[in-house]
Amino acid sequence: MTDRPKTPHLDRISSPADLRRMDDNSLSQVADELRAETISAVSETGGHLGAGLGVVELTVALHAVFDTPRDRLIWDVSHQCYPHKILTGRRDRIRTLRKKDGLSGFTKRSESPYDPFGAAHSSTSISAALGFTVARDLGGAPDPALGDAIAVIGDGAMSAGMAYEAMNNAGHLGKRMFVILNDNEMSIAPPVGAMSSYLSRLYAGAPFQELKAAAKGAVSMLPTPFQQGARRARDLLKHSVIGGTLFEELGFSYLGPIDGHDMEQLLPVLRTVRARATGPVLIHVITKKGKGYSPAENAADRGHATAKFDVLSGKQSKAKSNAPSYTSVFAKSLVEEAARDDRVCAVTAAMPDGTGLNLFAERYPSRCFDVGIAEQHGVTFSAGLAAGGMKPFCAIYSTFLQRGYDQVVHDVALQRLPVRFAIDRAGLVGADGATHAGAFDTAYLSNLPGFVVMAAADEAELKHMVATAAAHDSGPIAFRFPRGEGTGVEMPERGEVLEIGKGRMIREGKGVALLNFGARLKEVEEAVEALDARGINPTVADARFAKPLDRELILDLARDHDALITIEEGSIGGFGSHVAQLLAEEGVFDTGLKFRSMVLPDIFIDQASPRDMYAVAGLNAEDIEAKVLSVIGVEQIGKRA
Amino acid sequence: MTDRPKTPHLDRISSPADLRRMDDNSLSQVADELRAETISAVSETGGHLGAGLGVVELTVALHAVFDTPRDRLIWDVSHQCYPHKILTGRRDRIRTLRKKDGLSGFTKRSESPYDPFGAAHSSTSISAALGFTVARDLGGAPDPALGDAIAVIGDGAMSAGMAYEAMNNAGHLGKRMFVILNDNEMSIAPPVGAMSSYLSRLYAGAPFQELKAAAKGAVSMLPTPFQQGARRARDLLKHSVIGGTLFEELGFSYLGPIDGHDMEQLLPVLRTVRARATGPVLIHVITKKGKGYSPAENAADRGHATAKFDVLSGKQSKAKSNAPSYTSVFAKSLVEEAARDDRVCAVTAAMPDGTGLNLFAERYPSRCFDVGIAEQHGVTFSAGLAAGGMKPFCAIYSTFLQRGYDQVVHDVALQRLPVRFAIDRAGLVGADGATHAGAFDTAYLSNLPGFVVMAAADEAELKHMVATAAAHDSGPIAFRFPRGEGTGVEMPERGEVLEIGKGRMIREGKGVALLNFGARLKEVEEAVEALDARGINPTVADARFAKPLDRELILDLARDHDALITIEEGSIGGFGSHVAQLLAEEGVFDTGLKFRSMVLPDIFIDQASPRDMYAVAGLNAEDIEAKVLSVIGVEQIGKRA
Repeated sequence: MTDRPKTPHLDRISSPADLRRMDDNSLSQVADELRAETISAVSETGGHLGAGLGVVELTVALHAVFDTPRDRLIWDVSHQCYPHKILTGRRDRIRTLRKKDGLSGFTKRSESPYDPFGAAHSSTSISAALGFTVARDLGGAPDPALGDAIAVIGDGAMSAGMAYEAMNNAGHLGKRMFVILNDNEMSIAPPVGAMSSYLSRLYAGAPFQELKAAAKGAVSMLPTPFQQGARRARDLLKHSVIGGTLFEELGFSYLGPIDGHDMEQLLPVLRTVRARATGPVLIHVITKKGKGYSPAENAADRGHATAKFDVLSGKQSKAKSNAPSYTSVFAKSLVEEAARDDRVCAVTAAMPDGTGLNLFAERYPSRCFDVGIAEQHGVTFSAGLAAGGMKPFCAIYSTFLQRGYDQVVHDVALQRLPVRFAIDRAGLVGADGATHAGAFDTAYLSNLPGFVVMAAADEAELKHMVATAAAHDSGPIAFRFPRGEGTGVEMPERGEVLEIGKGRMIREGKGVALLNFGARLKEVEEAVEALDARGINPTVADARFAKPLDRELILDLARDHDALITIEEGSIGGFGSHVAQLLAEEGVFDTGLKFRSMVLPDIFIDQASPRDMYAVAGLNAEDIEAKVLSVIGVEQIGKRA
Repeated sequence: MTDRPKTPHLDRISSPADLRRMDDNSLSQVADELRAETISAVSETGGHLGAGLGVVELTVALHAVFDTPRDRLIWDVSHQCYPHKILTGRRDRIRTLRKKDGLSGFTKRSESPYDPFGAAHSSTSISAALGFTVARDLGGAPDPALGDAIAVIGDGAMSAGMAYEAMNNAGHLGKRMFVILNDNEMSIAPPVGAMSSYLSRLYAGAPFQELKAAAKGAVSMLPTPFQQGARRARDLLKHSVIGGTLFEELGFSYLGPIDGHDMEQLLPVLRTVRARATGPVLIHVITKKGKGYSPAENAADRGHATAKFDVLSGKQSKAKSNAPSYTSVFAKSLVEEAARDDRVCAVTAAMPDGTGLNLFAERYPSRCFDVGIAEQHGVTFSAGLAAGGMKPFCAIYSTFLQRGYDQVVHDVALQRLPVRFAIDRAGLVGADGATHAGAFDTAYLSNLPGFVVMAAADEAELKHMVATAAAHDSGPIAFRFPRGEGTGVEMPERGEVLEIGKGRMIREGKGVALLNFGARLKEVEEAVEALDARGINPTVADARFAKPLDRELILDLARDHDALITIEEGSIGGFGSHVAQLLAEEGVFDTGLKFRSMVLPDIFIDQASPRDMYAVAGLNAEDIEAKVLSVIGVEQIGKRA
């Protein structure tokens, strides 16, 4: 381990109030030490590095100028919050980031009063800030009393419709609030879309090195006798508006762009707007993701997410993988399908790397579309592609597909359009915690008429499901698969087109039948091994489909066993509920069946390793084994009379 | 009945191709007759009148200029599509609009090749148009071959983030496509938000009566030797850009505003852009909702939705109501709660009338927020209000709450913020059909940890639930209620705060227990009357809560009866699934229980009267009666051995 950095100024900060007693020069030194501390901490924990490094100065400046936690500082997405956590009383636990029982990798209301509104999905901050602002003006009175609300949002997050909706509403209401547009021209991937080009033009048109143009609205905020840095701040403010018309048209005063790593710009500008603003203000701050740590600055993703690393070399200590990741199997399988059928195309919502579609984009750039952080549009765009005769694969994580749910219902399902949904990160995901859990998709898709819903039990199954989806042209189809690496099964040369609505027997046993849906299969098999050792010999089947159900398989299992247990890494309302409905309607319960449905429990599960999270969920091999034992009792095995 | 209008020109149109053979003067006459025919038809059927009247000339002009159905004309929301349906081969069925087995009140792919992409929810058209555009360029080849895509979208729909996401993506891709911004300064209610003000400024800054300003981009589309109307069109185009910067910044060429009721403006402008456009073009058209029919023009809602009416007088023949509507009971109850607690506030997404919140806004204007068509923002704004100590009631129809699902999960549920969701239009809704069905909310909310989910069995129950929600401060709570009038029960003076997770016995019987969730209760009671006559004496209970379940009530019912049947006006995955999970986990099925869960069937149900739709769904009294008989058999009544 590298020595911890020396941080004499930072050591004096136990809460943001301490920052407010420092002179500007000391604040700059705090910022430098905060950067070193952040790098040091993340080198031990892994996590989101680049985003935090990009906002070190901004974090110090905001806490120094605004009266947090009375003023509500809301970090959009909030993977840039590590420096904020260090400054707000959590430095002593910063090296537990993203670990079991440790600090969350995101802001979290339950963790600190300095986290007034948690996040993890993007583009929610302006809506929340407006809520606080209105609550203040209406006399809402939590503890501490409400001050100003400040949202810090990235340029990528600005491509989401939700941010626009919030700006539109905030501009209309005209209340004093602050939006810091943290423009690093880089969210997770390079940003796309017209808004991104617009921001680039703003910067190109008026880089902060040469401020000269005229201004209007925002200048009125300038105090006449003005504190330290006045001339510079005045210059900065002066050129505002020119390029900021788009925001001005939405009712915001626009200031910027300013250099987000220059405390001599940040402090006076923030002080000025805090002193003078009467309505909504957008401050356009240019930052560099990964700033100040060259291995991050030089990485393609600007150190977006990292494993533990050596601080000096930047070398990451990634665990060696034994099997290909589900994501890469999906991506390679899709490339193969695309080679066979030029109607296959792909849509991602700002996650080309996370979904593996970067691979697809390399091979078939004209058939791959990154729509930005815009799941609503992404889904309906896919529906339009399908209506236009293409075979779109819409690749969105389970948790983010929630953003496009109405579009899935209204544009895809109702019209029976053959959009293929590739749902990565199904189930519990580990260090990203509860906000990223893929818990609900089986439930919220399987109740849609005409949908086909599959889950891959292993990476070979995933390959078959990609082929199945490509071949399925009569309506919507979805396949879910987990984060992480596969089980190491032998991979087929080519994906096989599965029969829709048909499961498969894994092994024939007796007494109890385990009916799996999804990637818990290896846990089921492990449980079965342990049960075998006890002389219990369960049947195991893999349903493959939550919709349509394999009625024959399920009814056969019910008929031939005393007990039937479904297992899935999803919430209630999904596969198990559909099986229960079938069994009820068919009268199977009338005469008795020991039926159990193992699903994710009714709690949000905090970050830990996936294995530990599944232990909390009660969906590991030992839980399955225990469930079998509790249901049938060791002595009670045998056919029903 | 008023005589049908004389329509000699319209009579010559059997498809849009006929329009393309007409001179411009005849097209204007077709438009006039089309208006008369639309009024005449809607006077017989009821439905959306104002929106269609506002686009009569636009409809004729678009079909005359573009090569539909090869060119894909996509009507956003599509309640303005009646004139379009008349022109596209459906005139003979136009008087079946919104009726059982008749034409849908919206565009529908299965109805006509002239409806390339159906709608009913707003703001999807640009995404779909971009999908068609990209599919064309990639060689997608359905029948007929793909031409240009044209989206017609209202100014209200432009407040939705989804439209912005699509503009952002379309501007980035830069492909030739057309967006007609149909600006009538009136969606369902007067529009709100900064975008709306912006559009007003555009119009005020350059009304089409005085066109003078300079232009840039869009002018390049102007042909030099130009057809009829050239001078005027050139003038129109010239002033573009000035005000259209916002759209220009998003990568669109902007043209407008032009008079959407003046064929001499519409035709040359559309012909010009069709001939010359190389990238995305936005054409800003000013129209008047209800145009040309004074009872509509003079109505507050511009004839948005109407019952059957007398054409001469405009007088609507509304059925007399026997009981107050659920919507009005909700609104009045909320006003009462607001009088008692000044932290109670309300949020609507552009539906102040539909949700009844107009009543609230009259009494408490400073506590009522119309956020525009912006459910995503509306939900998280409510979360911010809750985090700021207010008691927000977020009133969104079941079907539209799908738009804010991720925000419900990520911002409300995960943070356990006490947002109160008032979910109107739960269940099947009648003439608006499948797109407006409130089918999925119980399923998609009840699987969220910490949520309380209620359904009102009648209007008195609804009043109690409003009081219960107001009092519930420890986390999110939702209550659903149907469209239409209540059952006529006596109303309590004041809403009672219900015990969370406790149902109520309606009547004690034996043999079979009917466990109701929601407003099917009156059907249950009717079924029970019929069963009584047969000597069958079922127990009836009302669950009130899908979450948390009343475990004691449910387990008691299961223990004391041979059969337990749940009834709800929602999809699988909701109340019945939660009951099944409880019964399974408690081992109730182990020894046998005749359990059935009556839910909405796995189909999208076309428009009809609610009663007829519920007949298709199998959830009317006779269906419940039949289910009881089939489950227990008339002879088999009695306690289980």
